[in-house]
Amino acid sequence: MAKKNVLIIGAGGVAQVVAHKVAQQAAEFGDLHIANRTQSKADAIIDSLRLKGHDMPFISHQLDAMDSEAVEELLRKLNIGIVINVGSAFINMTVLDGCIAAGSAYIDTAIHEDPAKVCETPPWYANYEWKRRDDAAEAGVTAILGAGFDPGVVNAYARLAEDEYFDKIDEIDIVDINAGSHGRWFATNFDPEINFREFTGTVYSWQGGEWKSNKMFEVGREWDLPVVGKRKAYLSGHDEVHSLSARYKDADVRFWMGFGDHYINVFTVLQNLGLLSEQPVKTAEGQEVVPLKVVKAVLPDPASLAPDYEGKTCIGDLVKGTRDGKPGEVFIYNVADHKDAFNEVGSQGISYTAGVPPVAAAVLIARGVWDVKKMVNVEDLPARPFLELLGDLGLPTRVIDATGDHPI
Amino acid sequence: MAKKNVLIIGAGGVAQVVAHKVAQQAAEFGDLHIANRTQSKADAIIDSLRLKGHDMPFISHQLDAMDSEAVEELLRKLNIGIVINVGSAFINMTVLDGCIAAGSAYIDTAIHEDPAKVCETPPWYANYEWKRRDDAAEAGVTAILGAGFDPGVVNAYARLAEDEYFDKIDEIDIVDINAGSHGRWFATNFDPEINFREFTGTVYSWQGGEWKSNKMFEVGREWDLPVVGKRKAYLSGHDEVHSLSARYKDADVRFWMGFGDHYINVFTVLQNLGLLSEQPVKTAEGQEVVPLKVVKAVLPDPASLAPDYEGKTCIGDLVKGTRDGKPGEVFIYNVADHKDAFNEVGSQGISYTAGVPPVAAAVLIARGVWDVKKMVNVEDLPARPFLELLGDLGLPTRVIDATGDHPI
Repeated sequence: MAKKNVLIIGAGGVAQVVAHKVAQQAAEFGDLHIANRTQSKADAIIDSLRLKGHDMPFISHQLDAMDSEAVEELLRKLNIGIVINVGSAFINMTVLDGCIAAGSAYIDTAIHEDPAKVCETPPWYANYEWKRRDDAAEAGVTAILGAGFDPGVVNAYARLAEDEYFDKIDEIDIVDINAGSHGRWFATNFDPEINFREFTGTVYSWQGGEWKSNKMFEVGREWDLPVVGKRKAYLSGHDEVHSLSARYKDADVRFWMGFGDHYINVFTVLQNLGLLSEQPVKTAEGQEVVPLKVVKAVLPDPASLAPDYEGKTCIGDLVKGTRDGKPGEVFIYNVADHKDAFNEVGSQGISYTAGVPPVAAAVLIARGVWDVKKMVNVEDLPARPFLELLGDLGLPTRVIDATGDHPI
Repeated sequence: MAKKNVLIIGAGGVAQVVAHKVAQQAAEFGDLHIANRTQSKADAIIDSLRLKGHDMPFISHQLDAMDSEAVEELLRKLNIGIVINVGSAFINMTVLDGCIAAGSAYIDTAIHEDPAKVCETPPWYANYEWKRRDDAAEAGVTAILGAGFDPGVVNAYARLAEDEYFDKIDEIDIVDINAGSHGRWFATNFDPEINFREFTGTVYSWQGGEWKSNKMFEVGREWDLPVVGKRKAYLSGHDEVHSLSARYKDADVRFWMGFGDHYINVFTVLQNLGLLSEQPVKTAEGQEVVPLKVVKAVLPDPASLAPDYEGKTCIGDLVKGTRDGKPGEVFIYNVADHKDAFNEVGSQGISYTAGVPPVAAAVLIARGVWDVKKMVNVEDLPARPFLELLGDLGLPTRVIDATGDHPI
């Protein structure tokens, strides 16, 4: 069987990591392609691959990924087997439609968003991606949704707890702590537009078998985690809550994001002034402007943070459940290092943790292990092959359970 | 002699006060006109006059005040004797040129600014207005610069200290405290664009016979003032320092603006992120936008604050000097009340204190007392007639001197 050709869509910080990891795993794949609205950004990634000594043919393309027919056409022309979509969150549906039409497998790392809406009715996946479940199954197209770190690896952590620890799961608390420092006065770790959109709407959590609503920064809790120590994290809205709550209906599913006081202060000022709005305002001169896009324009490019980024991230799932009627808990986690990430692939740790997992997913599709010919979220797939491969690719999983703190 | 026709240029919160005060003093003037880029805003002010029972003919006009020929043409057509310019700070020079060409007296309340520049070389007046001194004198046109409260009344306070207290002035510290509350999460008291531009550049003060540079919020000092009590104020850049330093070359001249911690925090966040920049940035979509104009667009319209504004302002000059070799000091000040201002003219106290003084100046020109046929700053004119008239118009002056705290 011929090896599958891969197309990466997008050319930001995460795409940079994906490209480097695909290049490292080139033996698993056929031809390697990267497409972006601005082709020169794709070329810059290819240049960075050359600098690391990769010399396989990696070809760039210009693509308007909001045009599903253009996507389909490119996929057919290049005979693409696997698409790794790490472009803007606004292009998921058109890329997905292109994949279903062309018969290419689809992987993304974040949920679809409508640029004009913030925080829609839960579960979010039901508003967009899951509406294509039947189409994907009919076409026999593998579509793996949310296969970054969070969502993605943390979904697999929950599945690992299900497979190896508990016969009933009661609580899944996902905790994301970035204890690194970029040295700037303020910056977001990924696209500011997406970063802030995560926090401007209602915070949905799944508790007691129903959706609960809170405001951002309303519910905070101190966590004491491996390596990064005591850190304050806040109940936040996040993609994975909207799929894990479907598989683990009887469990409470919550997402906690760590924030320092400085971040919260800047966010609060921008939010209260209305500068995080995705709705256009009109200046005194009559120009229509979306405030959030201006905030994005003045903030540092997240990709530019990488060279100076220091410190570590810790992201994990605290899962509580019972086995044979006996209650227990397990913390499954990864620690990543910003400097190590930069030295390996020229990106900071946040991009690294988001960009490595979809490549692992692509390898598993290429090998047939995860080539399920339908649409799934990561927790719907066996977790161990994914987590073991991630260990090989630079994101090892550790567990704190009754026996102590050890690798899986 | 026929009474002079008056034209108000601008239709913001200060223009509202000017129009009401001109209407109250209608017997001093001929025809009353108001011109603005958006004529409907001028009409709204005229409507508010009618609501207060003023029924003199007050006529609105559309005017592009950045076009000096259009200004001249309107002045000639309406036979305007006195222009009160309370429009944007960007139109001073074109309005001034129009006045010199048409032979109309000119009054403004703030220094000219170039929209593309922040905080130019001191003294600021020398960059724009003072370059027209010879032209004004040749044309015999009275031009009174900076005749609001600060600059304006505070310049007259310094002159009063010169005329009635000291034969040598050593220090002039102007202190502006707004102890009122508008009840909003954040708002600026006048045009946010002008408000923030005041604080983003270098803070110039005149000390030891030369210009000193500081950053905003670098030098703070607690003041204990009548009515408003103990308040922290910061060394700030302000117009009047740039004219008083010319008349009082041997004195230190400083301007102190009161700020609460909340204002400073919001300002600091916006400033550090680059959102107060007057230089355009480009969004990811390629739109060119001036961040400061977007900040202005999302903030409350200062005029909208008036109905809920409560509390008082205290603005004054602490002047130190010697008379017959004996050192002394005097604090000359006004206290204004936001609610009183709203009840009288439908504006908050900041607009009131800025809008009443140019009307007093216009009355003094109309009466011939200040019709000096050349360009001057307020401290170049006798202070007592101005301050006494201001008392009649709602802004009484008090003095704390060796004999206690009393009206002038």
